[in-house]
Amino acid sequence: MGESSCDVESRVRNASLRSRIMSPQEAAKIVKDGMCVGCSGFTPSGYPKAVPLAIAERVRKGERLQITLWTGASVGPELDGELTEAGAIRRRFPYQTEERIRKAINDGRVSFQDLHLSMTAQNMRYGFYGNMDLAIVEAVAITEEGHLIPSTSVGNSPTFVKQAKEVIVEVNLTQPLELEGLHDIYIPDDPPSRKPIPIVKVSDRVGTPYIECGTDKIAAIVFCDIPDKQRPLSSIDETSRRMAQNLLDLLDLEVKAARLPKELLPLQSGVGSVANAVMAGLMEWPTDGLLVYTEVIQDSVLDLFDAGKLDFASGTSFTPSPQGAQRLYSNLTEYRKKVLLRPQEISNHPEIIRRLGVISMNTAIEVDIYGHVNSTMVSGTHMMNGIGGSGDFARNAYLSIFLCPSTAKGGAVSRVVPFCCHVDHTEHDVDVVVTEYGVADLRGLSPRERARQIVEKCAHPDYRPLLEDYMRKAESEGGHEPHLLDECFSKRLRER
Amino acid sequence: MGESSCDVESRVRNASLRSRIMSPQEAAKIVKDGMCVGCSGFTPSGYPKAVPLAIAERVRKGERLQITLWTGASVGPELDGELTEAGAIRRRFPYQTEERIRKAINDGRVSFQDLHLSMTAQNMRYGFYGNMDLAIVEAVAITEEGHLIPSTSVGNSPTFVKQAKEVIVEVNLTQPLELEGLHDIYIPDDPPSRKPIPIVKVSDRVGTPYIECGTDKIAAIVFCDIPDKQRPLSSIDETSRRMAQNLLDLLDLEVKAARLPKELLPLQSGVGSVANAVMAGLMEWPTDGLLVYTEVIQDSVLDLFDAGKLDFASGTSFTPSPQGAQRLYSNLTEYRKKVLLRPQEISNHPEIIRRLGVISMNTAIEVDIYGHVNSTMVSGTHMMNGIGGSGDFARNAYLSIFLCPSTAKGGAVSRVVPFCCHVDHTEHDVDVVVTEYGVADLRGLSPRERARQIVEKCAHPDYRPLLEDYMRKAESEGGHEPHLLDECFSKRLRER
Repeated sequence: MGESSCDVESRVRNASLRSRIMSPQEAAKIVKDGMCVGCSGFTPSGYPKAVPLAIAERVRKGERLQITLWTGASVGPELDGELTEAGAIRRRFPYQTEERIRKAINDGRVSFQDLHLSMTAQNMRYGFYGNMDLAIVEAVAITEEGHLIPSTSVGNSPTFVKQAKEVIVEVNLTQPLELEGLHDIYIPDDPPSRKPIPIVKVSDRVGTPYIECGTDKIAAIVFCDIPDKQRPLSSIDETSRRMAQNLLDLLDLEVKAARLPKELLPLQSGVGSVANAVMAGLMEWPTDGLLVYTEVIQDSVLDLFDAGKLDFASGTSFTPSPQGAQRLYSNLTEYRKKVLLRPQEISNHPEIIRRLGVISMNTAIEVDIYGHVNSTMVSGTHMMNGIGGSGDFARNAYLSIFLCPSTAKGGAVSRVVPFCCHVDHTEHDVDVVVTEYGVADLRGLSPRERARQIVEKCAHPDYRPLLEDYMRKAESEGGHEPHLLDECFSKRLRER
Repeated sequence: MGESSCDVESRVRNASLRSRIMSPQEAAKIVKDGMCVGCSGFTPSGYPKAVPLAIAERVRKGERLQITLWTGASVGPELDGELTEAGAIRRRFPYQTEERIRKAINDGRVSFQDLHLSMTAQNMRYGFYGNMDLAIVEAVAITEEGHLIPSTSVGNSPTFVKQAKEVIVEVNLTQPLELEGLHDIYIPDDPPSRKPIPIVKVSDRVGTPYIECGTDKIAAIVFCDIPDKQRPLSSIDETSRRMAQNLLDLLDLEVKAARLPKELLPLQSGVGSVANAVMAGLMEWPTDGLLVYTEVIQDSVLDLFDAGKLDFASGTSFTPSPQGAQRLYSNLTEYRKKVLLRPQEISNHPEIIRRLGVISMNTAIEVDIYGHVNSTMVSGTHMMNGIGGSGDFARNAYLSIFLCPSTAKGGAVSRVVPFCCHVDHTEHDVDVVVTEYGVADLRGLSPRERARQIVEKCAHPDYRPLLEDYMRKAESEGGHEPHLLDECFSKRLRER
C-alpha cells in the first residue's frame, strides 16, 4: 500500500493506534477456523476487500479455514466470491447476490439463512446466533477515540463492532474523507429497556456520526486501495418503463382520491431496472418535496435532487454507478446536507416505516392469483438473493406495492401463477400488484375478487385463459381461497 | 328494557342525550342497505347485541338490506351468526370464528378479507376501504361530553367512532360500571404527523379512559341487557399439556443461556386449549414479575395474578369464562390496578411489540419442514378463523414460537407436512416450532437443517419415515430449499 504519512495522520487520528497498522496478510492471520465473522457492507458498497482476499489466499494455499460470515446484505466479489471459491465460508447470513456463493448455497455447500434485514442485528445482540468473534469493517477514518467513520454503507456494522471480541479496520483510501458526517449511527437498547426510536422525520439525526468502537478492540488496521465494485446502471427496458408508468398512474389516482398527499409519503424502492424506471418516472412528478426512506441510494436519487424534486433521502447504503459516484463525490458537501446513512436496523425498522408511512415498492419473482408473492426462490427451490428488506417494508408500509413483469424468459413462463411455489409475502401484506399490463388494487377484496383483478389486470393475455380456467374449476370445488392442489404447480398453467 | 331512572342517570350522564334513548327496533332503522358499519367487539366480548338482532329481524321480515360489517375481531352469534343467517352481510372484515358466517365465507356468499388486526384501523383512516357510515358500539356509559366508556373490549371502536358519520350506542346494563377506568384509548396520528407511541412499559397509560365521540355524533342510544356470550373454559388435553411443557422447557433453557431474563419478557398467547395449557404451566414458573402484552385476557391471567406470578396484563379484550367473569367482577377495583385494555392497533402494534420484546406464542393449523406456517386455511382452501394478530406478534416478537399438535383427526392427518398448502407465516418469521413431541429451534439454521430438526423433533413418529424419504428425494434434486412440487401436496405424505 502506498499510503502517505498525511493519509496515516488524517485516517488514523490516534497516534498510538498507528502501531497496529499492518499488511492484509498479517491481519488475515487473526481469522481462525470456525470463527463467526461480521463484515461491513451492504450491496457492493463499504465492504472489506484486502483482508478477505488475504484470507482466501491463505486457504488457497492449503490452510483449513472455514468461517460463518455475517454482513449487512450483499457484498462485492472480493468477499463473497473469493471466499466461496476458496471454500472458506461454512455459514452465511443474511443476504447475498453473488454468483459463486449463490451456487454454493443451492448446492448445499454453504448453509444460508435468509433473514429480514431489520432483524439480524438485534437477534445477534439477543444471543440467538452465538458469539461474534471478529468484525472486519471498512472505514474512511478512525477517530482519536478509536471510533470508526464508515464509508459507503452502514449495514450491520455498529452491532458487529459492539458484539465482536476484536475488530479489524480496513481504511479505504479510495473512499473520500468527506463521507464523514454523512452517517447517523443509533443502536436501540435491548428489551426490556428499549425506548422509542426518536425519528419522526426522514431527515432526523438521532445518533453519532461514527460507529462506537474504542481503541482497545482494534486488533489490526489495514490500508486498502481497492474501490467499491461499482456497476454501470442497468438500462431501463420497455417492460420496466410500462410498469413504472402504471405505478405512477396509481400514485396519481391515490393523490386525486386524497389517500396520499400531493408530495406523496417517503418512498422505498428496491434495486435494479424496475426500481430505476420508477425513480426515473418520478422526475415527471408534478410537485416537489418528495422524500426517500429506503435501503439503497442510487443515481436516481441524485437525479431527483438535481431536478429539485427531492428534499431528503435516508438509506443504509450508497450504491452509485461509476458515473454516479463521480457526481456524488464532486459535490459531496452539498449532497451531504440532504442524505444520510443509518444502520439497517433503523433504515428498515417497522417502528419507523409504519410511523413515517413509507410507500414500499418491491419486485417479485412471481405473484399468485390471490396476491401471495415469491421474492426469493426460483422454481420454489433455488435461492436467487434473499428476502432482504422487502418484508420489513411491505408489512409496515402505508401502501405495499409489488412490481413484477407478467412473464419471464421472453414470454415462455408466466410470472402470474395459480399458487406461488414459494411464499415470502402473504396475501395479508400485498396491497397492490403492478405488471406492464396494469394495476391490481387488492385492498378490501376477498380472494376470489383478488384473483379476478390480478388475472384481468396483470397477467399476460396469453396466460389469462389458462388462469381463468383454473379459477373456474377451483371455485367449483368451493372454499374461501379456491385451489386445485393437484394442479396448482402444473407446468401446463405457467409455461408454453 | 327495564332500565331504572338511576341506570339512565349513571349510564347516560348528559341529560340532553337522554332524548335519543330508543328501542333497538327504532335504532335499527338507521341502518340502510349498502352501508359500511363498524361494530365494537373482539372475541364474544363487548359487541353490540340488541341492535344487530333488530336488524336481522327487519331482514327476516323481507326487507332488502345488506351491509359491509367491520369489527375488532370475532364477535358473538347475535351479530355474526344472526346477520349471516338473515343474509344481511355482504362483506366482512377482519376476522371471524362463528360457524354460520364461516360457512357463508367458504361458500362465497360473504366476501371476507382476512387482515392483520393491527392494520385495519389505520387503513380505514387512510381511506383504503371507503367511508364508514355508521358505528354501533357497546358501552357501559356515555360521559357528560358524549364520550363512550367501552365495556369488555376495545378493538377497533375508537377508529370506527372517529370515522363514522353516526354512532349508535348500546348501553349494556349487564356490564358493570366499574369497568370505567380500565381502558386506555390512544389513536396514533396519521403519517406524516405520527409521533412515537409513548409506551415503554406494559403498564404505561398513554390515552384517555373513554372513546372520544361527542354528543353530536350520537344518533341513538339503546339499552341492552343481553350478556356477552361467555363460554366455559376449554379443557386442557394431554397433547396440549405436553406441548406446554415443551415450551416451558424451552423458556427455561433460554433463561439458563442468558437469552431471556428470569422473569422473562412480556408474553403474548393465543386463545384455546393450547394457550390455556401454556398459561397454566406458567403457574409453576420459578420467579414472579411476569408480564402479559397480548390481545385477549382470559381466566389464566386471573390465576397468575392470584398466585402472585404476574405484575401486569395489557390486552384489547377480556374474554373470561362465566366463572372467570364472576371472579373478575367481584374484585374489579383490585384487578383494575393491574390490567388495561387498549385499542387493537396498540395492543398489536409492531412498534410496541418489538420495543417491549414480546415472546409470541401462537398456534398453527400445520407447519412445513422448512418452518412455514398455515394459520388460517383448512386443506389450503377453507377459512377457519383468520390470521388475527398472529402476524403482528410473530413478525415483531423477541422470540416467535408456533405451537401445533403433530397430528389432527386422531392421528389420521399429519400437521407436519412437506409444504404448507397455505402460508400465513413464512420461514422468516418462525423461530421455534413446538409439538407434543418436542421443540425445533430454527434460529440460525439453513432450510435443510431446519427440515431435519422439525421432522426429528416435532413430527409424529408414524410420519417421520415418509417425511425423511421426501427430504432425501428432494435434496437429490438440489436447491436451497429442496422440494418435489409434483408430490409435495400428495395425500400419501400427510394422511394414513
